[in-house]
Amino acid sequence: MTVLILTSEEDVTADMVVARLHGAGAPVIRLDPADLPGKAVLSADYAYGDFEGHLSVNGHVLSMGGLRSVWVRRPGEPAAHAAHPSPWLTAETRQALYGMLYSAPTRWMNHPCNADRARLKPWQLRIAHLSGFAVPPTVFTTTPRLAQQFAEEHRNVVVKSASGPPPGDPGLALPTTLIGPDADFSAVAAGPALLQRYVPKRADIRLTCVGVRLFAARKTAEPGQVDGRYGDTEHAWEAVPVPERIGRSVHEYVALTGLAYAAFDFAEDEDGVWWFLECNQGGQFGFVELQTGQPISEAVALWLSQRGTRTAFPQPSAGAGLP
Amino acid sequence: MTVLILTSEEDVTADMVVARLHGAGAPVIRLDPADLPGKAVLSADYAYGDFEGHLSVNGHVLSMGGLRSVWVRRPGEPAAHAAHPSPWLTAETRQALYGMLYSAPTRWMNHPCNADRARLKPWQLRIAHLSGFAVPPTVFTTTPRLAQQFAEEHRNVVVKSASGPPPGDPGLALPTTLIGPDADFSAVAAGPALLQRYVPKRADIRLTCVGVRLFAARKTAEPGQVDGRYGDTEHAWEAVPVPERIGRSVHEYVALTGLAYAAFDFAEDEDGVWWFLECNQGGQFGFVELQTGQPISEAVALWLSQRGTRTAFPQPSAGAGLP
Repeated sequence: MTVLILTSEEDVTADMVVARLHGAGAPVIRLDPADLPGKAVLSADYAYGDFEGHLSVNGHVLSMGGLRSVWVRRPGEPAAHAAHPSPWLTAETRQALYGMLYSAPTRWMNHPCNADRARLKPWQLRIAHLSGFAVPPTVFTTTPRLAQQFAEEHRNVVVKSASGPPPGDPGLALPTTLIGPDADFSAVAAGPALLQRYVPKRADIRLTCVGVRLFAARKTAEPGQVDGRYGDTEHAWEAVPVPERIGRSVHEYVALTGLAYAAFDFAEDEDGVWWFLECNQGGQFGFVELQTGQPISEAVALWLSQRGTRTAFPQPSAGAGLP
Repeated sequence: MTVLILTSEEDVTADMVVARLHGAGAPVIRLDPADLPGKAVLSADYAYGDFEGHLSVNGHVLSMGGLRSVWVRRPGEPAAHAAHPSPWLTAETRQALYGMLYSAPTRWMNHPCNADRARLKPWQLRIAHLSGFAVPPTVFTTTPRLAQQFAEEHRNVVVKSASGPPPGDPGLALPTTLIGPDADFSAVAAGPALLQRYVPKRADIRLTCVGVRLFAARKTAEPGQVDGRYGDTEHAWEAVPVPERIGRSVHEYVALTGLAYAAFDFAEDEDGVWWFLECNQGGQFGFVELQTGQPISEAVALWLSQRGTRTAFPQPSAGAGLP
């Protein structure tokens, strides 16, 4: 049974997992969807109520019946490396590749449908509420008056991007920024703003969830530091235990979202409360593992290579209707 | 309780449903996501474990708590009509709009996550198999040798596009085309081909599924006609009963895919067997209703306006794991 890794790049996180898989003797095939068709070939046959598919990359043939799991690790656009690329060729190749993979009984980390939905920040906050996390009051709005009202109510608020930094070369960093109620909110009418009550924090927490295994790491914050992703500090990430209540909420969150892998960011306040900031379904873990020694890549490799329920419908648990 | 219609256009299908909703006194708000921000404004507030959102279009305010259902009827790209449109503004606006709507307890026809997945043709065929439909043998391949082998085995095969016609102006029609085993299959290496055994048919069948209600229509085919979508015939669509076995398979298919609306195309062969060709989750029904008098728009309006389970997780039934 083979592990398929869909990836466009060689990065430390992927390499760590591949080394673990090789070490465990688990067969691995790496495919960049951009190389299909071309370096990779594919066939899927639907006949007489049954389905057979195979994928061939660099002479290695993978049958869909022998597919243990798929790790979606920053895959390229299908057909992007084709001799004559086009949006239509990409659409046709996406149909063939993902349509075939979705037909196979396999485990996904993470299924692209669940990953897409899990990227929506407002939905993240709703699921975080339902999972029992503490979430700082947050508003998404295109109304300057409501943005100002929110800032007046909560006094210290931060403004963030919901979808990530704007594209550009050189890349434009967009750190979370602290603002007050006297800021000019008129630009909110031109683009939705995400405002959140500022959590004065004594530490950043990164909690990595791999299946049912949880790894929490903590980094002491500089006094007054708003966005832990920018600016070096003298502090390093250290492994910390997962509070029981947080563990229960994490399991509830990944059950509701159908994620097998998720990286949670929390702010730890002066009272020790972990405030949910966001959950990144594709978050890096290499830097945490290197600093803390937590065996995250081993956990990922184990999840990918072990037996488990293989399904073409990796969906959130049923009965999870909202009130 | 209000019905929200996400649409970019005024078309006969949407207008028929809106007229029915108005006739029934059901409040309706029409929004083109391209008009957000601008003509439409939005705010979503997440605080203290609860969520409140509202959307305002042309002075009509819709609270998320008062949202009965969402009909996704060819919506525009978020922020496409903005004064300064950009991919980043579209991404931020998509986050705010869909993230808020996904947070609301509502019914979807169809939920975008389920709709996206349901567009994948190979997955459609797998689900059709599992639902008990007769499916013509089909192959998706980038290997010329396998394409030729398939054509030799089945003699008369058709070649199709999986994702739809290639874009272009003037639009390039791409009808399903009959080919034989002596065709030149070398181009298959440059782009995946979809080959299917040709079903000599005596009629086209369009079956429209709205919730649990099914409407079948039949149009006698011209002798030798391959693609019923192109070329006029003297025959019109006529309402026909749904065979019991087909009805069971349709209900299974929509349960597995999580679709509230689906338009199925079948080819009826000389023995009366209905062969599954495809299922279009966004298929038109105006032309069928106009020719057959079947009350499809009424069924859609009823589904959208009636009480029913409202959930933020409109997912396929659990336990639907593949063998």
